[in-house]
Amino acid sequence: MNTQTDIGRFITLEGGEGAGKSTNATYFASQLEAAGITLRVTREPGGTVLGERIRELLLDPSHQAVHADTELLLMFAARAQHLNEVILPALQAGEWVLCDRFTDATYAYQGGGRGIDMQRIAELEAWVQQGFEPDMTILFDLPVETGLARAGKRGALDRFEQEQTSFFTSVRDTYLQRAKQYPRRFRVIDAAQKLDDVQRQLDTLVEELLATRDKHTGEQTR
Amino acid sequence: MNTQTDIGRFITLEGGEGAGKSTNATYFASQLEAAGITLRVTREPGGTVLGERIRELLLDPSHQAVHADTELLLMFAARAQHLNEVILPALQAGEWVLCDRFTDATYAYQGGGRGIDMQRIAELEAWVQQGFEPDMTILFDLPVETGLARAGKRGALDRFEQEQTSFFTSVRDTYLQRAKQYPRRFRVIDAAQKLDDVQRQLDTLVEELLATRDKHTGEQTR
Repeated sequence: MNTQTDIGRFITLEGGEGAGKSTNATYFASQLEAAGITLRVTREPGGTVLGERIRELLLDPSHQAVHADTELLLMFAARAQHLNEVILPALQAGEWVLCDRFTDATYAYQGGGRGIDMQRIAELEAWVQQGFEPDMTILFDLPVETGLARAGKRGALDRFEQEQTSFFTSVRDTYLQRAKQYPRRFRVIDAAQKLDDVQRQLDTLVEELLATRDKHTGEQTR
Repeated sequence: MNTQTDIGRFITLEGGEGAGKSTNATYFASQLEAAGITLRVTREPGGTVLGERIRELLLDPSHQAVHADTELLLMFAARAQHLNEVILPALQAGEWVLCDRFTDATYAYQGGGRGIDMQRIAELEAWVQQGFEPDMTILFDLPVETGLARAGKRGALDRFEQEQTSFFTSVRDTYLQRAKQYPRRFRVIDAAQKLDDVQRQLDTLVEELLATRDKHTGEQTR
């Protein structure tokens, strides 16, 4: 949404298991709100009542036989609802939107992890988003073993978490490839660092985002 | 699946509300089975456990705010599961498949009825089916008012049935347009006729299908 100055910013958080997305999302949101930003915090898959019901279908460990195409279509169905019911209306009302996972996660998990052709994902992305993409994507990156060890502390593993380490290695590699491919919107944070250090990096990103807001505001008042 | 002679036939039944699809499907199936065909009878949306759960989401009258894109993606998610879990394996095992509604219904209801761009539907069809289509599609056609009067006798109307008459007129028109566009696979039956007359037409179609089977069998034994 960079080309329009009168609407909110769309920021996505990405990363593998145990990367600390949730903890850091809370911190990041509080910093933006402290700066006077009206922020909508949401997540994928889900973010709407219907999306949450689709999320339940996707995470149900009894559905071992979900075809990869089905999974991808369900993911994008939840995204279409989320986009049209929550994200776009909020942005158009001038709010900023912070979203825990978005389409990069589909490339990482379904593409890298499950081996679905990236071109097929790109076709559904184009169909649903019609060119819409995040203004900034923050990737919390850390070694797979570290992340899984952290995630394992949280209790029973869901269907995705039961996948093998090689799956998560592909997920991480895909995220890093995309960060390299789209350097303008990606910011990669080393999530293996101490929490304080991660938060100092997030502070820098908050400043960067606020600077673009101030610049846009300046342009509007000219 | 016409180009392959060693696999089953895929036959779809289409038509608006109250066209008598269910009653006639039972008759049609019994005639094929009497001729020695191993038949799998199924329906869309649904046809699988996951598909039925998606169908529940789609038919729930409390979901008035389902975005048209979401509805279309959910429909094709159920179809992808149905196709890969039920239809293709059955055909490959030599069974015939009789399916109550398939992609033509998406063009009729979501395209004609809800006004989604037919080209967008065609993109998802191509994505999911990759060229796969029915060998024969039987369209039970009748005036909208007649159909709605019949359907109304069955009790409470679901979300689709609550739509206005103009919606169903567009549904019917789209079905008839598609029958004209794809005359090779479509067979249109006047469902306003007496049941006996409808069944005599179905008998003719059964004979036509069995003739292609015999021809194929002949070719295989040459």
